[in-house]
Amino acid sequence: MAAMAEAVDTEQEALAQRLLSGDRRALAKAITLVENDDPRGWQIVRAVYPHTGGAAVVGFTGPPGVGKSTLLNALTKLEREHERTVAVLSIDPSSPFTKGALLGDRIRLTEHFLDPGVFIRSMANRGALGGLSEAALQAALLMDASGRDVVWLETVGVGQAEVDIIDHADTVVLVLMPGSGDSIQALKAGVMEIPDVIVVNKADHPLTDTMIREIKGVLALGPSQGWQVPVIRAQAATGVGIEQVREKLAEHRAFIEAAGTLSERRRRNLRSEVLAIATYRLRRELEAAISDDPAFQEMLDRVVARELDPASAATALLKSRVAPGSAPQPPPPAAH
Amino acid sequence: MAAMAEAVDTEQEALAQRLLSGDRRALAKAITLVENDDPRGWQIVRAVYPHTGGAAVVGFTGPPGVGKSTLLNALTKLEREHERTVAVLSIDPSSPFTKGALLGDRIRLTEHFLDPGVFIRSMANRGALGGLSEAALQAALLMDASGRDVVWLETVGVGQAEVDIIDHADTVVLVLMPGSGDSIQALKAGVMEIPDVIVVNKADHPLTDTMIREIKGVLALGPSQGWQVPVIRAQAATGVGIEQVREKLAEHRAFIEAAGTLSERRRRNLRSEVLAIATYRLRRELEAAISDDPAFQEMLDRVVARELDPASAATALLKSRVAPGSAPQPPPPAAH
Repeated sequence: MAAMAEAVDTEQEALAQRLLSGDRRALAKAITLVENDDPRGWQIVRAVYPHTGGAAVVGFTGPPGVGKSTLLNALTKLEREHERTVAVLSIDPSSPFTKGALLGDRIRLTEHFLDPGVFIRSMANRGALGGLSEAALQAALLMDASGRDVVWLETVGVGQAEVDIIDHADTVVLVLMPGSGDSIQALKAGVMEIPDVIVVNKADHPLTDTMIREIKGVLALGPSQGWQVPVIRAQAATGVGIEQVREKLAEHRAFIEAAGTLSERRRRNLRSEVLAIATYRLRRELEAAISDDPAFQEMLDRVVARELDPASAATALLKSRVAPGSAPQPPPPAAH
Repeated sequence: MAAMAEAVDTEQEALAQRLLSGDRRALAKAITLVENDDPRGWQIVRAVYPHTGGAAVVGFTGPPGVGKSTLLNALTKLEREHERTVAVLSIDPSSPFTKGALLGDRIRLTEHFLDPGVFIRSMANRGALGGLSEAALQAALLMDASGRDVVWLETVGVGQAEVDIIDHADTVVLVLMPGSGDSIQALKAGVMEIPDVIVVNKADHPLTDTMIREIKGVLALGPSQGWQVPVIRAQAATGVGIEQVREKLAEHRAFIEAAGTLSERRRRNLRSEVLAIATYRLRRELEAAISDDPAFQEMLDRVVARELDPASAATALLKSRVAPGSAPQPPPPAAH
C-alpha cells in the first residue's frame, strides 16, 4: 500500500497555485471540477492538500426553516468586522417534488456577494448515489486551502450524506427554533448526536423558554465532565445572540485544541473519508457495470420472479466483477 | 453473471421448512442468524425466497415520540379481529448517550406476546457500518415467507439505513403529531419524501387543526393525478382513527396493484437491494482488510500529516485490495 500522490498536470498546478494565493475564481473553478467528479478536480485537491488544516471548520445543522442561512449571514458580518475571511458551503436539499423551494434561503447570503473576504457556494443533493458527501468534503478542503479563516458547512440534519459532512467539522452547531419538537425528541431518543453548541433561533417566540428547558433536560443526561454544550438564544434576523455564538465557537475550538481532541477527531474523520471515497468508487463501478448489462437485467428478472434471492444475486454480481481483474495475465514473450 | 442459488445445507433446509410452515421459533432463529450476519441465515433466506412476495409490506416512519408503537399495537388488534396474521419489525434507534431510552415504546407491543398470530421483533441500529438495512430487509423476507398476511416495518425517519428500509415497503405511512414542525418543514422543503398515507396521532391536541392545514398545504403542491395522500386524525391510545388507517392501507394497496406500480416498485427496490448488499460486502471487506493493517495506519498517518490527500489514499487502498486477486495464477502442472 505504498501510496504516492500521483503527478499533477501543469494546468491544474497553475490553478492550484492561484487558489492557494486566495484567488476566488480559481477556488470557484476547482469546486466545480470536484462537483462534476472531474479527475482534474481531484488533482487540484491533491496539489493543495498540504496547505489545508488551517481553517476552523464548523458544521451548522438543523431542520429546514429554523433560519440557518440568516444566522450564517449575521455571523459572516461579525467575522468580517474582525477581519476574518469566510467560506460557506451550503448543501442544498432538493427533490423533484418542491424543487427550488429553498431558494429564498440562499438569496439571503448574497448580501456579502461583493465582499472578496466572503466566498459562498451551494451544492445540490444529487440523490442516493452517495457522491455528495465526497464532493462536499473535497470542496471544504479547497476552501480551507484557499486561506479562509473559517469554513462553514450548512446542511439540514436529514440523511446520511448530511451526517457524513457534519461529522467532518471540528465543531458542530445545531440550530433549532421554538416548535422544533421532532428534533428534541430525536435528541432525547439518542437517534440524533449531541452537538457541541445549540442555538435556539427566533427566540422572541413565546415558547422559547419551554424549548430551552426541554433541551437542558436532554443535555442533563449527558456527561458532566468535559465540554458542556451551551444553549444560546438568538434572533439572527436582528443580530441578537450572534456575538455569543461567535464566542462559544471560539471557546469550543480552544477547548478541543487544549484537550487534544481536535487532532483525534480529525484523524477519525480522515479515516472515514478515505473509506467513504473508496466505497463510493466501488459502488459507482458496480452501477456503471450493470447499467447496460443484459446479464444483470436477466438476473434481476429472476430476482423479481422470486427464483433467485437478492443476496445470491449480489454474490453473483461481485463474482462477475472480480473475474476480469483476476484473469491470468498473458505470459510474457519468451526471452531470446 | 450466470447466477445459481448455491446449495443449502440439510440443517438449514429443515429450519426453512419449519419457517415456511409458520413455526414462530424457526422464524425467530432465522432472524437471529441473519442479524448476526451468519452465512446460515443467508442460506435460509435463499431457501425460502421463492415463497416471499405474498405479504403486504408497510413501512411506518416518523420522529420518535409520535406514538408509532401505540399505533401499531392498535392496528395489530384490528388485524387480528379480521383474522389476519401480523409481523412487526421495529428498528430500534440507540446511541451510547441515551441507550435504551426507547424501551418503553417497545414494551407496549408485548400485549400481543402470547398470540401466535403476532410476531414482534426489534433490531438495534448497529451504527455506521451500513449492515442494518441489509439485515432488516432479509428479516422482512423471512417474515413474509413465514406466511404473515402483513409485515410492518417501524423506523424513526432519520438516517440512510431507515430510509433504505422504508423504501422497500409497498406502502409508506408517515406518523406525525401536533408539534411535528420539523417534519412539516422537511416535507415542505422536499428533503423528506412524500409518503402514501399520513397519520396525525394524538389528535386531541388543540394544535391538530393547524398541523393538518399545514400538511394539506404541502400536499397541494404535489401531483393532482394518481394516488391522493390521505391525512388521518388518530388517537392510537384510545383506538380513534385506527379503522380508517386500516382502510386507507387496503385502498393504497388496491390502487398500486391496479395501476401496476406495485410490481414496478418491487423491481426497483429489489435492484437497490442487490446493489446495497454488494456494496455493503465490498465495504466490509475493505474495513476488515485495513483494521489491523500497519500499512494502512502508516498511510493514514501521512493523510493526517497533510502529506497525502484522502482521495489518493483511497486510490492506493483500492489498488492494494485488487492486487491479490489479480495476481497471475501459478501455471498448471505440465501434462505428461
